[in-house]
Amino acid sequence: MSLTKKPSTGMKDILPEEMRIRDYCISMIEKTYESFGFSHIETPCVEHIENLCSNQGGENEKLIFKVLKRGDKLNLEEAKCENDLVDSGLRYDLTLPLARYYSNNQAVLPAPFKALQMGNVWRAERPQKGRFRQFMQCDIDILGEPGNLAETELILATTTLLSKLDFKNFRVKINERKILKAMTEYAGFEADKTDAVFIILDKMDKIGVDGVKEDLIANGFSADAVEKYMGLFDEIKSLNDPTNIKALDYLNEKLSGIIEEGVIDNLKEIFVSVNTAKTAECELVFDPTLVRGMGYYTGTIYEVEMAELNCSVAGGGRYDKMIGKFTGNDTPACGFSIGFERIITIMLENGFKIPGENEKIAFLYEKGMDSERVGKIIKEASALRNEGKIVLVAKMNKNKKFQKETLMSQGYTEFKDFYVEELKN
Amino acid sequence: MSLTKKPSTGMKDILPEEMRIRDYCISMIEKTYESFGFSHIETPCVEHIENLCSNQGGENEKLIFKVLKRGDKLNLEEAKCENDLVDSGLRYDLTLPLARYYSNNQAVLPAPFKALQMGNVWRAERPQKGRFRQFMQCDIDILGEPGNLAETELILATTTLLSKLDFKNFRVKINERKILKAMTEYAGFEADKTDAVFIILDKMDKIGVDGVKEDLIANGFSADAVEKYMGLFDEIKSLNDPTNIKALDYLNEKLSGIIEEGVIDNLKEIFVSVNTAKTAECELVFDPTLVRGMGYYTGTIYEVEMAELNCSVAGGGRYDKMIGKFTGNDTPACGFSIGFERIITIMLENGFKIPGENEKIAFLYEKGMDSERVGKIIKEASALRNEGKIVLVAKMNKNKKFQKETLMSQGYTEFKDFYVEELKN
Repeated sequence: MSLTKKPSTGMKDILPEEMRIRDYCISMIEKTYESFGFSHIETPCVEHIENLCSNQGGENEKLIFKVLKRGDKLNLEEAKCENDLVDSGLRYDLTLPLARYYSNNQAVLPAPFKALQMGNVWRAERPQKGRFRQFMQCDIDILGEPGNLAETELILATTTLLSKLDFKNFRVKINERKILKAMTEYAGFEADKTDAVFIILDKMDKIGVDGVKEDLIANGFSADAVEKYMGLFDEIKSLNDPTNIKALDYLNEKLSGIIEEGVIDNLKEIFVSVNTAKTAECELVFDPTLVRGMGYYTGTIYEVEMAELNCSVAGGGRYDKMIGKFTGNDTPACGFSIGFERIITIMLENGFKIPGENEKIAFLYEKGMDSERVGKIIKEASALRNEGKIVLVAKMNKNKKFQKETLMSQGYTEFKDFYVEELKN
Repeated sequence: MSLTKKPSTGMKDILPEEMRIRDYCISMIEKTYESFGFSHIETPCVEHIENLCSNQGGENEKLIFKVLKRGDKLNLEEAKCENDLVDSGLRYDLTLPLARYYSNNQAVLPAPFKALQMGNVWRAERPQKGRFRQFMQCDIDILGEPGNLAETELILATTTLLSKLDFKNFRVKINERKILKAMTEYAGFEADKTDAVFIILDKMDKIGVDGVKEDLIANGFSADAVEKYMGLFDEIKSLNDPTNIKALDYLNEKLSGIIEEGVIDNLKEIFVSVNTAKTAECELVFDPTLVRGMGYYTGTIYEVEMAELNCSVAGGGRYDKMIGKFTGNDTPACGFSIGFERIITIMLENGFKIPGENEKIAFLYEKGMDSERVGKIIKEASALRNEGKIVLVAKMNKNKKFQKETLMSQGYTEFKDFYVEELKN
């Protein structure tokens, strides 16, 4: 077989320039989230196939990279389906592995447990521009905290981080799965079909209100229910409140008797705490159209939207029923994931300059220098390196001018030349 | 299928305490190597199967985790062997992916290119204590530098790093594949069988000189050649020079006419440069018994040995022929890989204390606090977090004493309590 230069289909090599921005981001993420008391942890990239295929991952389960069994020779003749050949796969997100991790290590972890994860995940999506089959995810989760202190801290930590990365004018949209459920019930959708309704409602930003209406009706839902549901949006809009806090009181009344007691008050408390504590230039907004795809959410859901770019850069929610599938005991859980790759893309497009980058100095020495003198030059470099400066020691090229220009394009701003002759004096 | 709590076979969950040491190490690695002018890069964890199976990986190729093809449905009936089902696998090291990366991106990379890689690799080894199927590797490589400035800088960067991580009294053992070849030729081994001889010689530290002798003879090599080869070691030993620099001159004479001109002088130059520049408490030693397993080495080879632990914590060498297999043009290449997992294990066993860790403060508030007051408490925490302090905001437990003791065991040294009553005043 001949060798292949390109990376594996849909994956990418990361060049030094992008890597510097990624490393800067990673260090800001660590510093910021750790200051909020989150502990950095890691799970293996490879996960049991039975965990990956346990209906916690929605559409992503179709995209799993499966890993061939090792050890005994594979029995290809008797294998009837893919899963006879595999016992593991690459993780498609960090949430399911976290639930496994927590159930495995609960006894030695603090309660509540605040986890920070940064790691690659893999999805075998059709390769397309800007979408990769391996990409970094970066999640914070609070496990074991039933109250809205979890949501408040997650939102504040995420917005503080984004603001430190120079993001401004973003909005945190928040909603509640229980409000969505109550709204569908109020409108007259069958209670056992809410999941199907949510999947269609989730397309709102892609196909618009009219598209969603058509889609719902095409899927056999009653036109009356559809009209009544969408009517709520018009009524909320007419309240003319940009952050939609008024809509919460409106819905509390409208859904009274249907919605679980305290759900809307809980959301209002999050607004008060976040708005009192927040330092980032951002706005918290109640968005009744927000659904978020994953089936595992049980309560609050939220997303960070960049107003100027009209895209989401972070999202999360409460999923109180996932850990119980491992342990048998439900554990409150709430997470916020930033779109690491999208953030990097935006920073690269904006020509983000890393603040306080180290000084870069190049020591160039003439060819033919004896090895003791080379050692002394490197020793001189070491002293500067020890002060935190970046010092490249290299042989001088014939075309020194071109060499220096190239080094300047790599950020070297200072040069020191060493000639064989100097030594003789 | 029921869910599994344990990690995938042979892999491990990393707990917060270990992760702190890992993160500290990673940041020291980045800082130190970047100060030497190395650029951090990344390749995908998944690599083309034809690259992984191209005889660059020695024994490791038997241990590849193979990834099932995606896209079209697998044709299980017609598949005759594993490789009919796969087109990629998990990388087993970082060297082969680096050679592919360089051949793919050469046009936009500096020349010479100094690369730093930190990433997981996977090997399906038989699970055993302390050996994992997923582990971190950390490599520095200099590509495009034919001279011994490459070796000198790699050795100085690695020893500087180890010394910053508080390792002392270690030895850098160095040898040259060309010396090894000349020694086997001198002893009378057939020139086309040196690879087989090297594999056996590499067992020296496991089975001793006598074991190696027996093994060579059992494999059909002449007893005369074996005796003559081993005799060289006795002669070198009799020179009574702990760093074996005298042995270099001795071999230069002994192997004259067999060994390529300049090989031993090149090694001596490395000694002079390294010994002039080095700042770490370590010793460079010529070790004629050092072989290093990988078949791809073409020149110098080296290893860092911890005297007290009698184990190797880093290793590398020159491999001038690998990149040419991708590009058609040989490119000088030289690397040094630290045994990241072993280093972490040693640091954990030694109870390594991270210098200058951030202050950890816990804000505990009584239950029943209203959400505005919670917001104000978090805002007070934010100010401290912004100063680099770690502040946990948590609800007070009924047993506050126990809660504080637990937090103290997690490193929280300062506490501030907030009561509902205080607000009323």
